[in-house]
Amino acid sequence: MEAAIMTLVTQFKTYAGKDGASSTLSKDEFQSLVASQLPNYVKNGSDPAVIDQLMGSLDENNDGELTFSEFWQLIGKLASKQGGFCQ
Amino acid sequence: MEAAIMTLVTQFKTYAGKDGASSTLSKDEFQSLVASQLPNYVKNGSDPAVIDQLMGSLDENNDGELTFSEFWQLIGKLASKQGGFCQ
Repeated sequence: MEAAIMTLVTQFKTYAGKDGASSTLSKDEFQSLVASQLPNYVKNGSDPAVIDQLMGSLDENNDGELTFSEFWQLIGKLASKQGGFCQ
Repeated sequence: MEAAIMTLVTQFKTYAGKDGASSTLSKDEFQSLVASQLPNYVKNGSDPAVIDQLMGSLDENNDGELTFSEFWQLIGKLASKQGGFCQ
């Protein structure tokens, strides 16, 4: 499990580091990550409306940037869905 | 990322399925998972007191079983720590 956790951390950092604040995902970085890394888990990830809605639902303090903690909630929901767990 | 997410889901299910309710981790299953899968991320994971404390802090509805969602919060904290993110 530790290798899988590290993969998620490393990939988050790779995308978060593309522009601006290196520890958070801007909308562009989030869209890029979703399209490249979560093509099967997020349907229509290249649709800006989908990204807007998803980002709005995750960005708790509504500052246009996703922290790792906010991002973790998203992949937790995707993981629950994939695993067939009810939340 | 999808492969890493699936690894975490699959491992959770493997341990959750060892006894009793197959979709949640009992204390024994949680201890087994932590000792085997998170040896570097959780210090002294074979110490029952460490497991008791960790499990108590995660088990939101205090029923002695960890759901996937409760477990996800733990690995999110471990991931944040490993990644050097503040929460």
